[in-house]
Amino acid sequence: MQTPQGDYFAAYRSLKLSRDVNGVLVVEFHSNGGPLTFTAQAHTEVVDACYRISQDRANKIVILTGAGGEFITGVDWPSFGNVADPTVWSQVHDEGVQVLENIANIRVPVIAAIEGRAHVHSEYALLANVIVAAEGATFQDVAHFAAGVVPGDGIFTTWSYRAGAGRAEAFLLNPQPLTARTAYEWGVVAEVVPNGKALSRARELAALYLKAPEVTRRDTRVHFIRPLKERIVREVGYGLSLEGASAADLVKSMQAKSEPLAQKGKSA
Amino acid sequence: MQTPQGDYFAAYRSLKLSRDVNGVLVVEFHSNGGPLTFTAQAHTEVVDACYRISQDRANKIVILTGAGGEFITGVDWPSFGNVADPTVWSQVHDEGVQVLENIANIRVPVIAAIEGRAHVHSEYALLANVIVAAEGATFQDVAHFAAGVVPGDGIFTTWSYRAGAGRAEAFLLNPQPLTARTAYEWGVVAEVVPNGKALSRARELAALYLKAPEVTRRDTRVHFIRPLKERIVREVGYGLSLEGASAADLVKSMQAKSEPLAQKGKSA
Amino acid sequence: MQTPQGDYFAAYRSLKLSRDVNGVLVVEFHSNGGPLTFTAQAHTEVVDACYRISQDRANKIVILTGAGGEFITGVDWPSFGNVADPTVWSQVHDEGVQVLENIANIRVPVIAAIEGRAHVHSEYALLANVIVAAEGATFQDVAHFAAGVVPGDGIFTTWSYRAGAGRAEAFLLNPQPLTARTAYEWGVVAEVVPNGKALSRARELAALYLKAPEVTRRDTRVHFIRPLKERIVREVGYGLSLEGASAADLVKSMQAKSEPLAQKGKSA
Amino acid sequence: MQTPQGDYFAAYRSLKLSRDVNGVLVVEFHSNGGPLTFTAQAHTEVVDACYRISQDRANKIVILTGAGGEFITGVDWPSFGNVADPTVWSQVHDEGVQVLENIANIRVPVIAAIEGRAHVHSEYALLANVIVAAEGATFQDVAHFAAGVVPGDGIFTTWSYRAGAGRAEAFLLNPQPLTARTAYEWGVVAEVVPNGKALSRARELAALYLKAPEVTRRDTRVHFIRPLKERIVREVGYGLSLEGASAADLVKSMQAKSEPLAQKGKSA
Amino acid sequence: MQTPQGDYFAAYRSLKLSRDVNGVLVVEFHSNGGPLTFTAQAHTEVVDACYRISQDRANKIVILTGAGGEFITGVDWPSFGNVADPTVWSQVHDEGVQVLENIANIRVPVIAAIEGRAHVHSEYALLANVIVAAEGATFQDVAHFAAGVVPGDGIFTTWSYRAGAGRAEAFLLNPQPLTARTAYEWGVVAEVVPNGKALSRARELAALYLKAPEVTRRDTRVHFIRPLKERIVREVGYGLSLEGASAADLVKSMQAKSEPLAQKGKSA
Amino acid sequence: MQTPQGDYFAAYRSLKLSRDVNGVLVVEFHSNGGPLTFTAQAHTEVVDACYRISQDRANKIVILTGAGGEFITGVDWPSFGNVADPTVWSQVHDEGVQVLENIANIRVPVIAAIEGRAHVHSEYALLANVIVAAEGATFQDVAHFAAGVVPGDGIFTTWSYRAGAGRAEAFLLNPQPLTARTAYEWGVVAEVVPNGKALSRARELAALYLKAPEVTRRDTRVHFIRPLKERIVREVGYGLSLEGASAADLVKSMQAKSEPLAQKGKSA
Repeated sequence: MQTPQGDYFAAYRSLKLSRDVNGVLVVEFHSNGGPLTFTAQAHTEVVDACYRISQDRANKIVILTGAGGEFITGVDWPSFGNVADPTVWSQVHDEGVQVLENIANIRVPVIAAIEGRAHVHSEYALLANVIVAAEGATFQDVAHFAAGVVPGDGIFTTWSYRAGAGRAEAFLLNPQPLTARTAYEWGVVAEVVPNGKALSRARELAALYLKAPEVTRRDTRVHFIRPLKERIVREVGYGLSLEGASAADLVKSMQAKSEPLAQKGKSA
Repeated sequence: MQTPQGDYFAAYRSLKLSRDVNGVLVVEFHSNGGPLTFTAQAHTEVVDACYRISQDRANKIVILTGAGGEFITGVDWPSFGNVADPTVWSQVHDEGVQVLENIANIRVPVIAAIEGRAHVHSEYALLANVIVAAEGATFQDVAHFAAGVVPGDGIFTTWSYRAGAGRAEAFLLNPQPLTARTAYEWGVVAEVVPNGKALSRARELAALYLKAPEVTRRDTRVHFIRPLKERIVREVGYGLSLEGASAADLVKSMQAKSEPLAQKGKSA
Repeated sequence: MQTPQGDYFAAYRSLKLSRDVNGVLVVEFHSNGGPLTFTAQAHTEVVDACYRISQDRANKIVILTGAGGEFITGVDWPSFGNVADPTVWSQVHDEGVQVLENIANIRVPVIAAIEGRAHVHSEYALLANVIVAAEGATFQDVAHFAAGVVPGDGIFTTWSYRAGAGRAEAFLLNPQPLTARTAYEWGVVAEVVPNGKALSRARELAALYLKAPEVTRRDTRVHFIRPLKERIVREVGYGLSLEGASAADLVKSMQAKSEPLAQKGKSA
Repeated sequence: MQTPQGDYFAAYRSLKLSRDVNGVLVVEFHSNGGPLTFTAQAHTEVVDACYRISQDRANKIVILTGAGGEFITGVDWPSFGNVADPTVWSQVHDEGVQVLENIANIRVPVIAAIEGRAHVHSEYALLANVIVAAEGATFQDVAHFAAGVVPGDGIFTTWSYRAGAGRAEAFLLNPQPLTARTAYEWGVVAEVVPNGKALSRARELAALYLKAPEVTRRDTRVHFIRPLKERIVREVGYGLSLEGASAADLVKSMQAKSEPLAQKGKSA
Repeated sequence: MQTPQGDYFAAYRSLKLSRDVNGVLVVEFHSNGGPLTFTAQAHTEVVDACYRISQDRANKIVILTGAGGEFITGVDWPSFGNVADPTVWSQVHDEGVQVLENIANIRVPVIAAIEGRAHVHSEYALLANVIVAAEGATFQDVAHFAAGVVPGDGIFTTWSYRAGAGRAEAFLLNPQPLTARTAYEWGVVAEVVPNGKALSRARELAALYLKAPEVTRRDTRVHFIRPLKERIVREVGYGLSLEGASAADLVKSMQAKSEPLAQKGKSA
Repeated sequence: MQTPQGDYFAAYRSLKLSRDVNGVLVVEFHSNGGPLTFTAQAHTEVVDACYRISQDRANKIVILTGAGGEFITGVDWPSFGNVADPTVWSQVHDEGVQVLENIANIRVPVIAAIEGRAHVHSEYALLANVIVAAEGATFQDVAHFAAGVVPGDGIFTTWSYRAGAGRAEAFLLNPQPLTARTAYEWGVVAEVVPNGKALSRARELAALYLKAPEVTRRDTRVHFIRPLKERIVREVGYGLSLEGASAADLVKSMQAKSEPLAQKGKSA
């Protein structure tokens, strides 16, 4: 009755969507088939894509994964424009809250399959119910404190929720690559598998979960995600506002340093 | 002044209650003296028993334990009747919320002493302040996702609260026996003891706690349980409603499968 | 532009405050230069000092530490007077809530550097973002359940928040020295360093954090502490009220024991 | 199938319970058939009675009302003993929280029918879904601030929840009789009826509600009471602890005044 | 730069969308141009429409209104199919939560303009910041308790939030048309205008709000809706689950009545 | 034992503090003895003053009032500097949260006595337990939406808490003077008195409250303010961040308008 192909599957440049006959949807974050470098466009796309995924009842299980042997590796800062501009940041704030709510509202089991570096937006993975990571996978946050801004987009909320606040705070203030094994010991990763096997193991788990009835699968997700969804509503909007203020301060401090060179005034 | 025997002690078939002269109450879940297989009657009894226990100020410490070298091992599904019937499930919902609130309202230190399998309703044990487990003890959830229904009765809430959400979700979606040692590493079990020694170690801890004044003992429990009690109020009713919907879907799917064979209609 | 010396720096007997030219404030809890034994006067002083510290924007990073090779080691009970007197406890309650809110409101990164025994008020350290502990450091709670009163002043709230509720409850009901290594495994301590090196490592981290812009540093703290601040507001006042009731019961039970000897009436 | 008479109906001195053939249970608070003056015994009884009522699925609608043309009029203070004794107050605290939770857990529509003075424990009435008040009914709080103690037993929580915090605070700090009409304008009373007609109007509403199916009736109550139940769990225990501290201070201040006359020491 | 016409404007049968050059979007709920009778299709459409509206930054102000001199007047029950089927209700539950979140996530000021009967899904109007109602407008809930099911879809949550819990509970248990004037006195309606003038007054307010800068307008909405959004996340999913259970019980009770006549029922 | 004069009484330019022999502290907001126009300096002062007031146990009752027949009438915008500068706003954010927490932490009954215009920072008054307003008093919010910024500093939180969200949203989006009488009908004002009599009536209430014992007075405040304090912690920091973003957008839009005229760059 359902086609394995949703009409939105081809709509995105940064996400490749494919669904098998059992309804297992694999979402691959990518840039031209290789590892995704996050851009402003990708930021907008994931919001829409995750909403469409969440509303499509033909999706029975969702697997989030990367491409080219990595999860997500970098950020293309200039693509966001002047983050000190309140209008620019307003959009970042709104999209940043919305995407996490949209992933949380995927009402079927979500599995993250991590190979390589999950160094940007690893909170997407932490919104899954279960994370399968390859031995060589690493987690890090290259996009916030190390780059001069507040880790306010949900990365603290999700890591704090799954690893504990003490670990999350140290991890985010002094970012170092965290091995899959350590993430397992912290309770974040559910299974560590050989390199290259994360997706296939995720598919095995998907097949296992599919044995439960439809409503059971959907409502188990609804039940499990509720406390985190509440934390998202309570924390992430504020976090993103603080991150925006810090981004404006970063721009200002960089301008101050560069001003002797180029008295350019308003342009970030 | 207080008799060591409460008038409700003999009222239950599935709980054996005994209290020593110091007010240490031992609650044994059992079926005819052996390991408890959970029935609808037991479900109703534990609600009442835990309330009476909570209100009886002669209980100074409460120890929850099993019988026959096990904690709780199985469920007698047919005893619950047709769980797709909304009237039947309404009672399951109401009792399921009430029993957890009643255990949470036991206002003296609660210790769980676990031998063997805690494979059903292990959330009762996780409502204790301290869990002592024998080396051979195992934790599992055979009654929910593996059986086709949402783990909504507090098992997720308590495991998530004590072990972290990541571990709880993986543990409940793909139930495998969890050793006492692993539960210790997860922060759920406080002490691992040789097989057969869980109850005696629990009694030693009880004796230790009895050195504190009455109000200190009671109010320490009140203080420690508060955050979990709040989560119970916020999550478990909804969880049980979702579990009820999933149970109805399970019944429907089983009926669909069996209909070609036996056009039996409504019987679960 | 800022003087390295705030006007309140010399105001306290139990806290030594010193700030370097980069704005790194080191707060040493001490008694006459040696390890701090907590007194009623110290209780009042930390409230005021932490508020002043929190409001002084010249503080860029705050390091909490002890003196004489220890963090905080003991309590001078008699200095509090009769804790069964409701007026006396009212002040303990008010100050006890206020000090935790004041530390939480220090809106720059806070690092705790622990040498030796953190056996009293370790919750001050757990309000830091990051704890650096020397190998020989130990954590314990000698001031509550072991002494006959409810651990209600935030020690449960902070340990539960950072180590998990199961570990916190067992740790507080049967207090034993917890090694730095175990606290690290529990996710409470971020780094274990050789004895005598906690403060110097904390200074290194401070230097690292100072690379981020001012607003980034401040707002990262604001974001990270929010969930714990909410728990403080929700739990600690009640906890202290319960602790007060238990203290009154302790006084009463001690009077009951001593009455045959010395019919002294009201004195605690 | 159900008998109109529960086995607990005759168990209480302060509550008269009667149930008609449709399952409408009328609970009358009384002292020897006349208006109830609250005693320590009544405090204990309402806890047990409300629990039994909440668990008895033969109760389809519950109506709370008074006797002798009044709701509840006074308190017999001496019956509580020395409220400055921590053991005594511990019981008041525990029962005070439990009774509100038990009323909140009555999982069928609850209607309060108020004649005359609701001057003590009006929060019981405010836990109903709907309050019908006679024209001459008045609400007041004679038992707390006017008597020298904190209004901490749920009277603030329920009035704040239903009338708004501003009105509740003024009403409780400077207690004056509040007319049924004003309580109606505040949104607390749903209907004002002629004197003597509150119970009969409550019965009419009960008959109306009975038209809905069993599960609908039960679960509407469950849904409506949830936010207030959460506030009870969060506020009332702490409120009662503060009330206990204030009661101890009241006893102390009264002793201080009377000591020159009668050096009686510890007796309240 | 923006076209006054979004690409999704023509996508819905039950919603007419039109936007003026200033970005004021008027959303008219309708059935063939006349008053909307709610159908299952409409239920699905509003979810999608409100999401698209919320994400389209060309919308500067949103006005929700009805058609044919009414807001929303009725429900086409049969269009929902067998609401006792867990799969059917699962969709109702998911859409019912999602639509309220989507309206709450419209991050610009929302004004409701009410003419005539708001007798179904008035919670959509109560998610607006400001309600303008014509003198002859009435509010009622014909779709829940009066029809035999729990008012669990957010109607209680929103009315309780804006009118107070006491009024909401009585209003929903014994549904009667509530006049615009009374809704004004309850604080739900902000302005009462002559019949036929609600929309034009809403446009005046929109023009007034447009004087504020873009970010101010967006973030004022974000700030104002936050507490209600949190209540939606906490209450509405559970409410809809309870409503589903009650719907199943209603179907069962109707089948029981009709079975002697026509043994077929609607096949549960 | 206590002097009627605290050492901080003379420390502020914008607050006049005086305390009678009974410990009733009157706090007058003023500018040179006349109505207070809010400046950046005043913003900083009220934070410190309210903290000192909250910690001084010699204050038994606190009355907040204005000067020159007004409460607070205006804002001196230029005194805040460039509110688009993230460093400037960081201070506004931190002080704005802190001052509300400090007023909430005044642990004795607080009464607001309002004459004339409470048109700026009326949330200070709404943090009192009881508001006495003169007949001619008016409430308005001239400092936010009408001035182009988000009402995020607690004005929405407090008005929503005391008047209901519907009224608060309309009041803040389309600010008009609200009479004392209407504020009374909304449940915000407790008593309306003749012009010029607000302070004397507040003193009468203070005398009445002083009849209760010390701990009763303190802990009643603690109990009553708790829910609002929790909302402050949850909402006001985020609100101020959003207000900051909107202020930056306002500055940007004003610069855009003025740029053709005067290419002045950064000055707000």
